[in-house]
Amino acid sequence: MDAHTIDTADNPPSLPEEETPWLTAREQRMWRAHLEVAKLLEYQLSRELQPHNLAINDYEILVVLSEAPDHRMRMTDLATATLQSKSRLSHQITRMENAGLVLRQECPGDRRGLYAHLTEQGWATMQRVAPDHVRSVRAHFIDRFTPEQLDAMYEALAPVAEHLRGLRGRS
Amino acid sequence: MDAHTIDTADNPPSLPEEETPWLTAREQRMWRAHLEVAKLLEYQLSRELQPHNLAINDYEILVVLSEAPDHRMRMTDLATATLQSKSRLSHQITRMENAGLVLRQECPGDRRGLYAHLTEQGWATMQRVAPDHVRSVRAHFIDRFTPEQLDAMYEALAPVAEHLRGLRGRS
Repeated sequence: MDAHTIDTADNPPSLPEEETPWLTAREQRMWRAHLEVAKLLEYQLSRELQPHNLAINDYEILVVLSEAPDHRMRMTDLATATLQSKSRLSHQITRMENAGLVLRQECPGDRRGLYAHLTEQGWATMQRVAPDHVRSVRAHFIDRFTPEQLDAMYEALAPVAEHLRGLRGRS
Repeated sequence: MDAHTIDTADNPPSLPEEETPWLTAREQRMWRAHLEVAKLLEYQLSRELQPHNLAINDYEILVVLSEAPDHRMRMTDLATATLQSKSRLSHQITRMENAGLVLRQECPGDRRGLYAHLTEQGWATMQRVAPDHVRSVRAHFIDRFTPEQLDAMYEALAPVAEHLRGLRGRS
């Protein structure tokens, strides 16, 4: 980016700029490739879910609930699992409730709030959509790497994911 | 995911399901690490732009315009460069115009529509924010890989980005 070559000569002397650690060309190209793949892949997977009338975030909720015991999860835990704010999740669950995919339920004897519960229709939707979705994930991402690349990328990304989860947990 | 073990026995015989190519455990862990890093990294970078009153998409627009000749770009090209729809970009540019960061201008003699132009204030904002942003990108992503990992990931991701850009271009 041009940011590499920004002229800092007019910074006031009272605020001497620390040397900025601009990305090298090799770092930059990897950073841009990551950003581009992340963005374009989400776009493509979203497009391929459209015939099922599902947003990509809806699909994620269906996956998480289908993996939870009794197909239900506390709203606060679901927000953590899907890495979104409680208010945003609440809006999404309302939409999905209107579509018949989930139900909000109070749990008797548990005052810690509401659960989101996968409905029969939500489970059937998940079963119907999952085969198409996994084919999309293969066609546009997974099958484009060698087994060695898959393992190397996992080794590289897993500690970064752990670092970022830690930051998120503290906030 | 439990999707691996979905019972397909109740599919109607008139629609025999092709064998679904579910992800293996090794593919699955890499896929999840990618999703998690993409999502958490965007969250963290957004948070660290908040003190500058910038959304991460605003920052991206500032970068793209600052790299364009004369710091301006046709709206349609800017939509392509930032991989978003024209209507969504239009809303975003309106917000950024209200914040004094960009201006929409008609180009005399060019009937192909509007340009977005970086203002002096937009350029100054970019110069002020870029050093902090590049430190965030290093701290949470780039500096967490070895040079060999950076190169290997670029080699793996670049063809995927190209594939996805091709699909996007056709849509």
